[in-house]
Amino acid sequence: VSKVRYSTSMSLDGFVAGRDQSLENPLGVGGHRLHEWMRALAVWRKEVGLQGGETNASTAVLEEEDTDVGAIIMGRNMFGGGIGPWGQDPWRGWWGDNPPFHLPVFVLTHHARVPLELQGGTSFTFVSDGIGAALELARDAANGSEVVVSGGGSVAKQYLAAGLLDEMVIHLVPVLLTDGVRLFDPLTTPEVRIEQVRVIEAPDVTHLTYRIVK
Amino acid sequence: VSKVRYSTSMSLDGFVAGRDQSLENPLGVGGHRLHEWMRALAVWRKEVGLQGGETNASTAVLEEEDTDVGAIIMGRNMFGGGIGPWGQDPWRGWWGDNPPFHLPVFVLTHHARVPLELQGGTSFTFVSDGIGAALELARDAANGSEVVVSGGGSVAKQYLAAGLLDEMVIHLVPVLLTDGVRLFDPLTTPEVRIEQVRVIEAPDVTHLTYRIVK
Repeated sequence: VSKVRYSTSMSLDGFVAGRDQSLENPLGVGGHRLHEWMRALAVWRKEVGLQGGETNASTAVLEEEDTDVGAIIMGRNMFGGGIGPWGQDPWRGWWGDNPPFHLPVFVLTHHARVPLELQGGTSFTFVSDGIGAALELARDAANGSEVVVSGGGSVAKQYLAAGLLDEMVIHLVPVLLTDGVRLFDPLTTPEVRIEQVRVIEAPDVTHLTYRIVK
Repeated sequence: VSKVRYSTSMSLDGFVAGRDQSLENPLGVGGHRLHEWMRALAVWRKEVGLQGGETNASTAVLEEEDTDVGAIIMGRNMFGGGIGPWGQDPWRGWWGDNPPFHLPVFVLTHHARVPLELQGGTSFTFVSDGIGAALELARDAANGSEVVVSGGGSVAKQYLAAGLLDEMVIHLVPVLLTDGVRLFDPLTTPEVRIEQVRVIEAPDVTHLTYRIVK
């Protein structure tokens, strides 16, 4: 059965997005600083059509994250639901006609709509009946490969709390955002046991892998 | 002039002590789990008079932390102020007659009292007129060696907010405490810039060193 992995950048003070997060600004104030380590990489820039960039210890981590992934689950914020003419023309999210996923993507949303088939193998399927249903669809699509839970912390928190996550990868960045959206907070963090599996030091980020003990 | 360093164990979800922290239970519920990596070490056990233990990648980190330290600043909780017959007999804190510090220790407290000179070179000086005054005393005592800010997060937060900290060492443990005392929270985390200086992977802990950019 597919392994379910969540991967996120997090500030040292625990935030996965800055304050005043909204559909228009899903990273929140200062949230772009969480992803600077990634935007510096040639491998990432090429994927989104940008030139230049560097190769460092993060390169292999990012490449590995894309290996043997069969499906992606994300929240509506990461899809970019708020910008387009929602419910009218088929808004295609943030990602343009050829999104960098090249996989079946399952978007958790309250608003059901027909699936989008885009170029390069990316499809967006909108799931409005819960995280369990989305995982079932993603597992079917992944066909034994990994299912990656992506995007805002709220989706990951739901999967973690439901005991459905096998692995968390935290890209810990040396930033104090001081406020914003926490990955872990007292109301939603479940009492699960985790084990440190791997640590990789890279420029301006530490890649931490944890296994969730069932 | 002395470098000022803060060193703490922190859970992946950002807590330096569990919930229901008190003078009687300064680590709070589950807070002992933050220090298990340290209690497993022969070098630490020997220091506090225990036998056995192991040697691993944390050993050098812990030994290095004790090198070239000239003075320690801690809060009243870490000294252990609440247990003894306060204001009567000279209560000596948690640490017994021969505390494992072997250095001048400056305890931030609201209750002034005469200093304690204990065995092995440890003295406790009680400072009731603020973190600046304590740092001045500690710098004088350290005479160019490092000043270490230790213990509960509230003391470190004050030094960080006042721009008096040069370096933070976070021993990040694979534990989700779900609630307790945060090192960083929106009301007290200053907008300071930090740089990742060093990362060391060890069993059940990752040692992260950050420099505070002035």
